[in-house]
Amino acid sequence: MYLQVLGCGSAKPTLTHHPSAQILRLREKLFLIDCGEGTQLQMLKYRASFAHLHRIFISHLHGDHCLGLPGLLNSMALLGTTHPVHIYGPKGIKRYVDMIIDLFCREDAERIIAHEIIPDGCEEIYSDKSVSVSAFRLDHRVPTIGYLFRETPLQRHLDRASADFYGVPMAYFGRIKQGEGFVQPDGTIIPNDRLTKAPRASYSYAYCSDTAYREEIIPHIEGVDLLYHETTFEASHTARAETTKHSTTHQAAQIAKLAGVGSLLIGHYSARYGSREDIERLRQECLSIFPQVIAGDEGLVIDFKSLSK
Amino acid sequence: MYLQVLGCGSAKPTLTHHPSAQILRLREKLFLIDCGEGTQLQMLKYRASFAHLHRIFISHLHGDHCLGLPGLLNSMALLGTTHPVHIYGPKGIKRYVDMIIDLFCREDAERIIAHEIIPDGCEEIYSDKSVSVSAFRLDHRVPTIGYLFRETPLQRHLDRASADFYGVPMAYFGRIKQGEGFVQPDGTIIPNDRLTKAPRASYSYAYCSDTAYREEIIPHIEGVDLLYHETTFEASHTARAETTKHSTTHQAAQIAKLAGVGSLLIGHYSARYGSREDIERLRQECLSIFPQVIAGDEGLVIDFKSLSK
Repeated sequence: MYLQVLGCGSAKPTLTHHPSAQILRLREKLFLIDCGEGTQLQMLKYRASFAHLHRIFISHLHGDHCLGLPGLLNSMALLGTTHPVHIYGPKGIKRYVDMIIDLFCREDAERIIAHEIIPDGCEEIYSDKSVSVSAFRLDHRVPTIGYLFRETPLQRHLDRASADFYGVPMAYFGRIKQGEGFVQPDGTIIPNDRLTKAPRASYSYAYCSDTAYREEIIPHIEGVDLLYHETTFEASHTARAETTKHSTTHQAAQIAKLAGVGSLLIGHYSARYGSREDIERLRQECLSIFPQVIAGDEGLVIDFKSLSK
Repeated sequence: MYLQVLGCGSAKPTLTHHPSAQILRLREKLFLIDCGEGTQLQMLKYRASFAHLHRIFISHLHGDHCLGLPGLLNSMALLGTTHPVHIYGPKGIKRYVDMIIDLFCREDAERIIAHEIIPDGCEEIYSDKSVSVSAFRLDHRVPTIGYLFRETPLQRHLDRASADFYGVPMAYFGRIKQGEGFVQPDGTIIPNDRLTKAPRASYSYAYCSDTAYREEIIPHIEGVDLLYHETTFEASHTARAETTKHSTTHQAAQIAKLAGVGSLLIGHYSARYGSREDIERLRQECLSIFPQVIAGDEGLVIDFKSLSK
């Protein structure tokens, strides 16, 4: 599982950061999370194939999180996409997607499916054999959704040497992988955990942007391997964060700490933070509260394998 | 008067060209012509101030010509713009702008004014003391408008040495500039052309994108200093141009020749033309028919003073 940051700026346009967009790659799948203006070009730049994009998750309908959607859908139609594309988002997403279809890709009306989500707690909104996606409420100026991606628990691995030692015929391997034990011809039962090895723990990722400091989200994101929590402002700007319903570095780090996550990814930087030094300062502020902090940057790829547990 | 190209690509997204957008600067004014996705960043990059942008001209409602509009209007609202912004475009522009306002800048509904234009011939759609803008029909797959910008004829310049020689008091200078002659105390009439010098000819610019080859537009663009005519395809692709209602290099150059324009600016390059060599080849194809050809490129500035007459 890999996460790639396509944009980590905020609403005011700048030449240093793109607006919000991330790609989560899981086995052959590709999920787009938020889609600020220019996302289609960022996807092109970082080789995220439109052909593998089937699901898009929009946090809220502020321009810097969804204005790339018309262009992306338009280009996908233009390039001959024939697969269904599902778009998840808060109340209003259906109207927005309907308008896009009506104006720019009317022939694709049946292929583009919007799902309006009004989360109550933390609800699963999608699952397939490799992942489950849940949605929960954030606290911003408009209805905003946080997303939680949990990789489906992996099967135990067959311990081939052990299976051979206990004389398990190959025909039984499938059942062993699914958790069964093996009964030897003399009636001895070999329990499954002698024949298999535990798989790695499955990965999890939570996306929280945009939001004010809300401890209510902690139960939903507890213990995830990676938490993206917006840090629009530096620590001292709590008043500004409160008014605009955004978070500061200290607030994001505090949420990461209380939720006991593995690592914290920060982003959605206010336009006032233009330089690498500014961003490093934001990261340092987080580090004063929480030990594992990654500063979001356009093009950054995070391999979940490399994250500290 | 200056023209700056912000984007000269076509519908399929590429990393080499931005979709259509141009800025025409005339004295203190700034006009935006077409607004593909990412135009607001291109404006930021090339220092085209949002504060001076009062009028936007959209040729047609294909995504690569208008998908930057929501982001631009959203950012202008966010940055505190208080002046009216007028948006001109073909049938459908009102619905599009209404949708943008409704979704992204509801508080600015009164400040953003859409003008739906259905041209009959070549009609003036806007004028002020320095420019007149007219609209005419192009021939594309959806209603599409060409725009003609004509600088208002300039006043004659006072020839100070001559005025002094004939004893014209300073109080008369204003009237002389407006074309009056001067009557000397002895009754001798000094005609205006002895007291003034002719101003430079006023500049004109025509924008034609997207369009099939249409000689019907020639009367509208005859003799302009600069003609932008799309060249989506190389000369040999006439069949493809016809099907998609675009133009080839030879067709654009032929229009420039028949209309007797000063210079031809080309652009709206198909995504297949990715390199500088490709673009130079398109330019050379035009040059085989018409002698003054400028290849559009992102950031290119054309000073009308420098154009050959």
